[in-house]
Amino acid sequence: MQPRITDITSPANPVLKSLKSLNDRRGRREAGQFLAEGLRVCTEALSAGHVPETLLFTPEAERHPLTADLIEATWQARGTILRTTPDLMQRLTGKDNAQAVAAAYAIPDISLAGLRRDAANLWLVAENLKDPGNFGTMLRTCDATGAGGVILLDQSCDPFSLEAVRASMGALFSRQVAKASGPEFFAWLRGAPGQLVGAVLSDRSVDYRAHAYQAPCFLLMGNEQAGLPDDYAAQCDALVKLPMIGAADSLNVAVCAGVLLYHALDRMPARQAV
Amino acid sequence: MQPRITDITSPANPVLKSLKSLNDRRGRREAGQFLAEGLRVCTEALSAGHVPETLLFTPEAERHPLTADLIEATWQARGTILRTTPDLMQRLTGKDNAQAVAAAYAIPDISLAGLRRDAANLWLVAENLKDPGNFGTMLRTCDATGAGGVILLDQSCDPFSLEAVRASMGALFSRQVAKASGPEFFAWLRGAPGQLVGAVLSDRSVDYRAHAYQAPCFLLMGNEQAGLPDDYAAQCDALVKLPMIGAADSLNVAVCAGVLLYHALDRMPARQAV
Repeated sequence: MQPRITDITSPANPVLKSLKSLNDRRGRREAGQFLAEGLRVCTEALSAGHVPETLLFTPEAERHPLTADLIEATWQARGTILRTTPDLMQRLTGKDNAQAVAAAYAIPDISLAGLRRDAANLWLVAENLKDPGNFGTMLRTCDATGAGGVILLDQSCDPFSLEAVRASMGALFSRQVAKASGPEFFAWLRGAPGQLVGAVLSDRSVDYRAHAYQAPCFLLMGNEQAGLPDDYAAQCDALVKLPMIGAADSLNVAVCAGVLLYHALDRMPARQAV
Repeated sequence: MQPRITDITSPANPVLKSLKSLNDRRGRREAGQFLAEGLRVCTEALSAGHVPETLLFTPEAERHPLTADLIEATWQARGTILRTTPDLMQRLTGKDNAQAVAAAYAIPDISLAGLRRDAANLWLVAENLKDPGNFGTMLRTCDATGAGGVILLDQSCDPFSLEAVRASMGALFSRQVAKASGPEFFAWLRGAPGQLVGAVLSDRSVDYRAHAYQAPCFLLMGNEQAGLPDDYAAQCDALVKLPMIGAADSLNVAVCAGVLLYHALDRMPARQAV
């Protein structure tokens, strides 16, 4: 049997509208889905076992063999398969140079209880991380370094916004994500072995090269503006800082996390996260 | 004599309109100015010797002693001093939570000829860097590591867009920026001692920890999507890569630059850039 493909030619199409609603946090919550773009990202998702609930592509993209694989997998899983114009694709993602493939995926469980803690030696924890681009970039670095993923604390950004998914470059499908309050996280953390290392720019912190990183190691990063609150720093087994040579005494949080992850990886080889 | 402060209360005010034009590349080129926001950034700029050509603030910000310093310096330099409403400040910068201080500065010389090469041991060079956020983040990391700044090659982004200035968090005033074509840069580079190290994810590259970094060291980063072209890689004295443990074989360019800068700083202590 051939997969059934529905053509969408009008911006008023209700299915397209419901996909567009996934650009808002509320729409994602109501549908229990999020949107990802790009043949490469959707193909990596498929390799990691994530099948679209809805798949959307342009006629040109349809000719690509990787798109055929996505169509087949979506069909097998009884998902919705849609063909549309480049113009409507652009309306959906609000991007000038829109991708030729997009897909809606089920939002996974992101409770701490669902986290497979044994999967990796290194984890990022972020307190009140506001910028979805920073989150996605950090998750992407987790993929590169074999870290397990990112645990978002308190009033952090939505990890399933289009901006977060874009910046993660597919890492949302290969890494783990959890959301919790600070107290929930600390209780969970101390329920099993784990070293909590806070990144704090203060006199109490040691140079990041002087610390002995031990697996499993949880690197705790503070908010973009305010840094890590004192009571969160007090929960840490160690506080580290990066040298600041210049005028501003500040660093982008995703860059800081990247330097720490690669340094910890150097000192404490990560297992490939599974 | 008291500084003369002009009140701006209408969105149709021509001075406000000309400031707003600095949000566009064309407007910046025509005016020879760019816009920066925030009391902290403008104060850091002043410490580094950069005086606003036009200074703008809300009545609330006016009461801050650091704003008084900015007013005095702008007045001494015969600049324009403006007071406006939070609402108009928001219209100017298109930001929900607008800063209470903004200023227009003269765009500096960004030719290679104007670069003070002796100022630092470490430099970033970026080929076809498209994202102004990445550029600003990289410049901010240059400040943190004492690197001299960023040399942008070919069709890179405008370093003076509001997004670039925002991400740089004031580093635009403490670091150097240059723009050149690839051939111009290679000719300039080889006119004096300097080690060119390219970040390339290929079999020809060595692990970044295996390379002997030598001052002055120029770290060359490729385009966000395409990486470094082969003919640019061929110009390098060494090619390095970061380990890629995960599924995607990719890293955000600003994170990659950050890891390399902090590693090179560890191996080859940077002088404070002047």
